[in-house]
Amino acid sequence: MATIKLSKISTKAPKNLDKEKTKKQSEKIIEEIFELQDKLYASKKGSVLVILQGIDASGKDGVVKKVFRKLNPANIKVYNFKKPSEEEFAHDFLWRLHKLAPRNGEIVIFNRSHYEDVLIQRVHNWIDKKTVQQRFDAINDFEKLLLQNGTKIVKCYMHISKEEQLNRLEERKVNPKKMWKHNDNDWEERKLWDSYRKAYEDAIEHCSKAAKWNIVAVDQNWYKKYQVATLVRDALKEMKLEYPKLKTSTTK
Amino acid sequence: MATIKLSKISTKAPKNLDKEKTKKQSEKIIEEIFELQDKLYASKKGSVLVILQGIDASGKDGVVKKVFRKLNPANIKVYNFKKPSEEEFAHDFLWRLHKLAPRNGEIVIFNRSHYEDVLIQRVHNWIDKKTVQQRFDAINDFEKLLLQNGTKIVKCYMHISKEEQLNRLEERKVNPKKMWKHNDNDWEERKLWDSYRKAYEDAIEHCSKAAKWNIVAVDQNWYKKYQVATLVRDALKEMKLEYPKLKTSTTK
Repeated sequence: MATIKLSKISTKAPKNLDKEKTKKQSEKIIEEIFELQDKLYASKKGSVLVILQGIDASGKDGVVKKVFRKLNPANIKVYNFKKPSEEEFAHDFLWRLHKLAPRNGEIVIFNRSHYEDVLIQRVHNWIDKKTVQQRFDAINDFEKLLLQNGTKIVKCYMHISKEEQLNRLEERKVNPKKMWKHNDNDWEERKLWDSYRKAYEDAIEHCSKAAKWNIVAVDQNWYKKYQVATLVRDALKEMKLEYPKLKTSTTK
Repeated sequence: MATIKLSKISTKAPKNLDKEKTKKQSEKIIEEIFELQDKLYASKKGSVLVILQGIDASGKDGVVKKVFRKLNPANIKVYNFKKPSEEEFAHDFLWRLHKLAPRNGEIVIFNRSHYEDVLIQRVHNWIDKKTVQQRFDAINDFEKLLLQNGTKIVKCYMHISKEEQLNRLEERKVNPKKMWKHNDNDWEERKLWDSYRKAYEDAIEHCSKAAKWNIVAVDQNWYKKYQVATLVRDALKEMKLEYPKLKTSTTK
């Protein structure tokens, strides 16, 4: 049993937090990220991997659009992981992700990730307990490997309330710009809310050895944006990036 | 001999063009691209491939940063092509690019491209005339294949003057944010200015069968941005993109 209880953690912004001030603050932080990502690209000293996990409608796509918009796409890559292909299923569960790990100088965003293999697969009983445990260990080892190679890993669990998920799924049925996101299957998965919660609690608890999880309260988009931007900015700042000095072999 | 004469084409903005108005116009166009790219992503109807070619310091990186910043990185991918790896050299010249072609719903930017294989390789006499001709044909065939599959191809030749290139290469030696871009080799290549011009003229003339080339005057960054943004916006508009209607199999 996991000791983390997601039901005890708020999915909302602190009540005393000023929305307008926070929004302005987020724009400043994104400008900081823009400056830092240029240094990262120039220096090629390390890389950043952002992992976004959360149930349907928890705002993963929104993070990509709102936080990483206004940055330079030259060294940002976003990968969405859906149902594995036949080729991918024919390999271990980390194979399809490993080849998309960031190269030095890059920021890579995994929209869903290897964690699906201990979440959806577990909730539907497609894998047994022993396999779950083996995968937890494999994930820790994999993330350690990346860290040791200079990759900062920013793991965000998108923490949404059951009510807010309902609002968002409903909106997809009426907003013409969002209808393409509607999927009957999301409503089926919603019935498994409690099982997903437990699987997330376990994954967060067992897979924090190499890189810790951040619980991001996402019921309000403006607060979600602020938190993720801060996490990415802080990760980049920790790298102490500098522009390389002039390298020249001639006196031209 | 190519009939196109780049020396006869201006590298500068028209004299009567208002700089401030054009800058504002560019921002509007980029907002339009943002709306259109969301429809492209939602509908998955076709894709866009932007090819940026030009000599060193002609502002290819700048286009990526200035035009494609402020867009959603979720369906934009940027690939820089440098010297091929041993693995890549062991294949035909289109192999390394073909696998990076956009999937439906994506905008992919090639910063340099398969055209390097009829430019730098030709200027340095690494390939013979027959090979150049074969590659021209292969490029036309390749681009036709992509077009037939629903990919809009936006080819931009970054047309810079010799003086402006000099300014920019000099700046890299003194601007601490740009020193990482300084490369002695760029100065060597600059000596081959005329050979590059001829190779470009030939490539533009012979490889416009499937997708035409756009000559982008790049001496002023604000005008460069405006032209490329317009080309990308127009390509997306031609696709007549719409958000998909609601698809639901149940009455939930």
